[in-house]
Amino acid sequence: MPSTPLPPTGGARPLRVAVIGYTGYSGIELVGLLERHAAVSLLLLDHRAAKDSALDASPVPCGLPTPSGRAHAPWSPSAIRDHQIDLVFTATPPEVSLDIIPEILRSGARAIDLSGAFRLRDAGQYQRWYKAAHTQPDLLAQAVYGLPELYREKIVDARLVANPGCYPTAAICALWPLLKADLVDRAAGVVCDAKSGVSGAGKSPSPKTHFVQISENFSAYAILEHRHVAEVLNNTGLDESEFSFTAQLLPIQRGILATNYLRLKKPATLDEIQAVYRAAYSGAGFVRLYPPGGQPQLSVVNHTNFCDIHCTLGSDGRRLVVVSCIDNLIKGAAGQAVQNMNVMFGLEESTGLLA
Amino acid sequence: MPSTPLPPTGGARPLRVAVIGYTGYSGIELVGLLERHAAVSLLLLDHRAAKDSALDASPVPCGLPTPSGRAHAPWSPSAIRDHQIDLVFTATPPEVSLDIIPEILRSGARAIDLSGAFRLRDAGQYQRWYKAAHTQPDLLAQAVYGLPELYREKIVDARLVANPGCYPTAAICALWPLLKADLVDRAAGVVCDAKSGVSGAGKSPSPKTHFVQISENFSAYAILEHRHVAEVLNNTGLDESEFSFTAQLLPIQRGILATNYLRLKKPATLDEIQAVYRAAYSGAGFVRLYPPGGQPQLSVVNHTNFCDIHCTLGSDGRRLVVVSCIDNLIKGAAGQAVQNMNVMFGLEESTGLLA
Amino acid sequence: MPSTPLPPTGGARPLRVAVIGYTGYSGIELVGLLERHAAVSLLLLDHRAAKDSALDASPVPCGLPTPSGRAHAPWSPSAIRDHQIDLVFTATPPEVSLDIIPEILRSGARAIDLSGAFRLRDAGQYQRWYKAAHTQPDLLAQAVYGLPELYREKIVDARLVANPGCYPTAAICALWPLLKADLVDRAAGVVCDAKSGVSGAGKSPSPKTHFVQISENFSAYAILEHRHVAEVLNNTGLDESEFSFTAQLLPIQRGILATNYLRLKKPATLDEIQAVYRAAYSGAGFVRLYPPGGQPQLSVVNHTNFCDIHCTLGSDGRRLVVVSCIDNLIKGAAGQAVQNMNVMFGLEESTGLLA
Amino acid sequence: MPSTPLPPTGGARPLRVAVIGYTGYSGIELVGLLERHAAVSLLLLDHRAAKDSALDASPVPCGLPTPSGRAHAPWSPSAIRDHQIDLVFTATPPEVSLDIIPEILRSGARAIDLSGAFRLRDAGQYQRWYKAAHTQPDLLAQAVYGLPELYREKIVDARLVANPGCYPTAAICALWPLLKADLVDRAAGVVCDAKSGVSGAGKSPSPKTHFVQISENFSAYAILEHRHVAEVLNNTGLDESEFSFTAQLLPIQRGILATNYLRLKKPATLDEIQAVYRAAYSGAGFVRLYPPGGQPQLSVVNHTNFCDIHCTLGSDGRRLVVVSCIDNLIKGAAGQAVQNMNVMFGLEESTGLLA
Repeated sequence: MPSTPLPPTGGARPLRVAVIGYTGYSGIELVGLLERHAAVSLLLLDHRAAKDSALDASPVPCGLPTPSGRAHAPWSPSAIRDHQIDLVFTATPPEVSLDIIPEILRSGARAIDLSGAFRLRDAGQYQRWYKAAHTQPDLLAQAVYGLPELYREKIVDARLVANPGCYPTAAICALWPLLKADLVDRAAGVVCDAKSGVSGAGKSPSPKTHFVQISENFSAYAILEHRHVAEVLNNTGLDESEFSFTAQLLPIQRGILATNYLRLKKPATLDEIQAVYRAAYSGAGFVRLYPPGGQPQLSVVNHTNFCDIHCTLGSDGRRLVVVSCIDNLIKGAAGQAVQNMNVMFGLEESTGLLA
Repeated sequence: MPSTPLPPTGGARPLRVAVIGYTGYSGIELVGLLERHAAVSLLLLDHRAAKDSALDASPVPCGLPTPSGRAHAPWSPSAIRDHQIDLVFTATPPEVSLDIIPEILRSGARAIDLSGAFRLRDAGQYQRWYKAAHTQPDLLAQAVYGLPELYREKIVDARLVANPGCYPTAAICALWPLLKADLVDRAAGVVCDAKSGVSGAGKSPSPKTHFVQISENFSAYAILEHRHVAEVLNNTGLDESEFSFTAQLLPIQRGILATNYLRLKKPATLDEIQAVYRAAYSGAGFVRLYPPGGQPQLSVVNHTNFCDIHCTLGSDGRRLVVVSCIDNLIKGAAGQAVQNMNVMFGLEESTGLLA
Repeated sequence: MPSTPLPPTGGARPLRVAVIGYTGYSGIELVGLLERHAAVSLLLLDHRAAKDSALDASPVPCGLPTPSGRAHAPWSPSAIRDHQIDLVFTATPPEVSLDIIPEILRSGARAIDLSGAFRLRDAGQYQRWYKAAHTQPDLLAQAVYGLPELYREKIVDARLVANPGCYPTAAICALWPLLKADLVDRAAGVVCDAKSGVSGAGKSPSPKTHFVQISENFSAYAILEHRHVAEVLNNTGLDESEFSFTAQLLPIQRGILATNYLRLKKPATLDEIQAVYRAAYSGAGFVRLYPPGGQPQLSVVNHTNFCDIHCTLGSDGRRLVVVSCIDNLIKGAAGQAVQNMNVMFGLEESTGLLA
Repeated sequence: MPSTPLPPTGGARPLRVAVIGYTGYSGIELVGLLERHAAVSLLLLDHRAAKDSALDASPVPCGLPTPSGRAHAPWSPSAIRDHQIDLVFTATPPEVSLDIIPEILRSGARAIDLSGAFRLRDAGQYQRWYKAAHTQPDLLAQAVYGLPELYREKIVDARLVANPGCYPTAAICALWPLLKADLVDRAAGVVCDAKSGVSGAGKSPSPKTHFVQISENFSAYAILEHRHVAEVLNNTGLDESEFSFTAQLLPIQRGILATNYLRLKKPATLDEIQAVYRAAYSGAGFVRLYPPGGQPQLSVVNHTNFCDIHCTLGSDGRRLVVVSCIDNLIKGAAGQAVQNMNVMFGLEESTGLLA
């Protein structure tokens, strides 16, 4: 496919943004969000011999010419410079991100990486959970964990943002306020029982994502061993021995519902617990709290960038169940990446993320 | 619930629009489209003691006050006048529409009715297919059938638009161009085998829409007897003896795929057939044509106002299969209603209907 | 519908069994199991003016006469005597069971009740969790909890068996062996995060079980308050303050997967834990244990009477996750009821329950 | 995996049956049916280095030894002789069946092939629809088409039975009686609009069967070009120019519903039409006819070997809609294969096929 230049821009220069890895579920979602984002001019960079195959067999409005397709170019460091790209999103496997992120940064662009390559603390932790050597330990040390609800101020100046994993986004948003306020009996253990839609398992066909395997079924996997556990520990302060995490596969396309169980150090009321969340997220437009009596469910959060939180307290005032819900492809991936972009470039945080 | 006034409007006066019947699937979809429509100011009119119950248990953004809810008022003819409503959408059962549409029109507003009350030719036809007397035969005679692809010019001046049924929208868009061009061997019969998502069966709980009944199942109903048949006959010119229609229930939420079978009077090429569609819909932005080789499917048309059309010709050049796809709640209901509104009030036809 | 007598029986007299309440999901499943059970002669008793409506519109083999239908009679205490019924299954709401069980027992038959009417400890506990007065406290005291894996010997002689709830069956089978062996740090709390298919919510149409509400969705309900909690406490010895239970609704027809989290008093190995289960269930043909490395899932247990158990131990040897899977309509209802019948009448426990 | 011998058999010698290709959906279903078949002793033959991997991670009943697995041996012509196999089922791709069926027959066993290799009339027809040369034209000429409802008497003596395709089974059962009785206006064309569950697309992972692609979607494919068309033509006498066939993919696991449209030569009554079916299938226990007013659906036919037929006649007495339903894996594959085996070996035709 020949390279197509970005349209010339006049007046208030839009943000010049590139996406590498736009054929997976997160990449597709990200391109959709960026195309509707008013302040962005988008370029697709083809890392492998990619092909915008969707165009071939798609229906075309009658009486209109065939659409010309999106601006794109082959990936290379010079493409970043030639197109004066301000920011590159990489929605690539971690080993690819490790390869290309250094070149992107050297070419003068900032980067938001949607893989797990730059989310952990150091090379040792990466080796343990990803079973692979980390080839860029210096960049790993510089990367900022891109959960704006916790790290907004660091994100503003970050050159490299590690966009959080989907499960950790749901778990950390639910657990962090209570742990920060030191309300939790950590010795009793914290449980996060998480359920995800199938898009979280990626787009590559496999026996595990075949329709006949998934429909009318439900399964647990990677019990206590999921590589996302490390992100949760790093960003909540929990020790591994204090945290039990199970990942489970729902027969739906998208959405994560995490049911978190905590024991409070001393009895509290539901009002007090909800006040803790309101305080922690007073500046966070994308965290919503269920009123008492609501029934948490995925359908109201899917296709949005919200993280919904629902609390139930036992009659003893100490057993606490916190349900958190996100769309794994939006708040758990592409939406959060756009939210990070907005923070990095001084745009209103919700630009392009509300309906 | 106390009445809340519409916000005051200054500068270019927006269209003042009311919706009666906003709790069913079409009504909910319609309210969502109108809230995002830049040229519209929306008022909900409560026909029965309705309650915007969704607000009670919905999650609320942290640190923000509880949302005040949408502007609404009790339905009455005077509410139309007091709020200077230009247009009322009725997403009500046909018997309710027959009651309130006359009052709406007398109050000076125009109306788009989403029920079947005003879609047929005359009271006799209504009696036959709806098994009920039509109480407003004069209004029935005045009503314009709201399929803009066929009747755009009549819709411009209509006081009452009868928004088409979902199945007829899919069937007529597929069949009309070929019949108009007199290419079809009508004596051989025309078949429309239609499949719909469950939202088409309405929101009232029933054994027929219970999850356990629908999932892992597929069924045919109202074979050759569906009340939507009359709309198709009226707007294609087919006789009942020339048309076979089957409705079927898919285990999905939304979307209609209709597989239409026709026999051509004389052999044609696929290019010729596609040219007929392009000519018929040269001014229609919402009809899309699949290129040869594409595979028609609901996922690319759902959540849009498009009607996608896909043609396959047999090796004899006479057996023709035309697949048409719509979202039953958008092009088959709420989106088409907004499209009609745009036509009636001189707005760009696609306003509020793209993305 | 006229009463049809049971077929005469000669030779080894089969067990004469009646079912009251055969139109709900559990009742339908139960009738299917009993019809295939070689040692049983089945009579349906119509409690309300019921109608075997399935027969009317069902397809009929060509060339065969219309099937005569199943033996049935109006419910009355004398029907039990007239038909010499040995055992009555009641798959009725608890308030109906409270009414008719005393009459059944007085008529000389034994009874297995599938409702919650006779599962709890005493009238006070029933009042608390069912928000209703228990009208048969004496029978409640006599009833035997019908979980054969725990109470086989009491069931042998029981006149009234309270068939366990679906969630409690999954939870108790997972938790009881470890608690009995005193391995659990109860002070740290025990979590049961349970997910059920929609048939568990019953057959009556409701907004909560509409296909459009359930599909592509997942929700939590009755968090910490589900009435099934009391059954789990009674049969594991846990105190309410030690147990956190969440019920959740899966977009599938059937199956319960419960993910249970426990903290061990002192570190153990997975082999030791599995040995505890093997010992506890050495005589239990219907409890299966996953080998290490398996991935627990509903598809292998659905449509069977098995309860599958899968254990994962954290690297500290103390965090333990026990996943238990059952078919809520079989091991969680009708299959367990047949298993109880087999135990009560000296039949091989698995008769009629293996494919 | 070491070879395990068939258990020794005494008294009435069971039928000695082998299956080659037991890991696909049809093969798994077939093995399940044969294991429950009272008159059969089953051997699995491993064509490629296969592995009964299901055993590794499956749950095992507590207190019982690990199951030893099924009898199996490496495929070779001598294995047929050594194990004195009477009948071999091949559930293999057509190119594999073409290779191994000659060797099976030469080894003295009879064969039922579930692939498309031997279903068509001659090598020319095979070349046209399968786009490949047929390497065994002589065997093709000898093979009997295994639809017992039409060809029972030929099947009795057949050495090689070609088990029909799933779509053709549904189409032929619906169309054949009316065409045989010469009631159909063939010039007007016959339509078969068929919808299948995803297991019909096979077990190999592909983008087309990914859960995210299938769920909440519905698509048409191979319109007018499906290779199953030739089987329908051969067995109904229709010409290609008289028959329009569309295959469509339902978001369910199993089941085919085919909606067939015919025009009668002269007006008839529904009673007359149903009498034609009853006469055609007077000896066919597996074809069932819906009474007038029923609503055809997959849930009542799935997991059975029945083919259900439902007729609707237009008010003109000439437009006829015939809906036929089968389970694609049972009557459309494995169940029909067992039915053929029963016919070939003089067993009651329904042995092992009625729950």
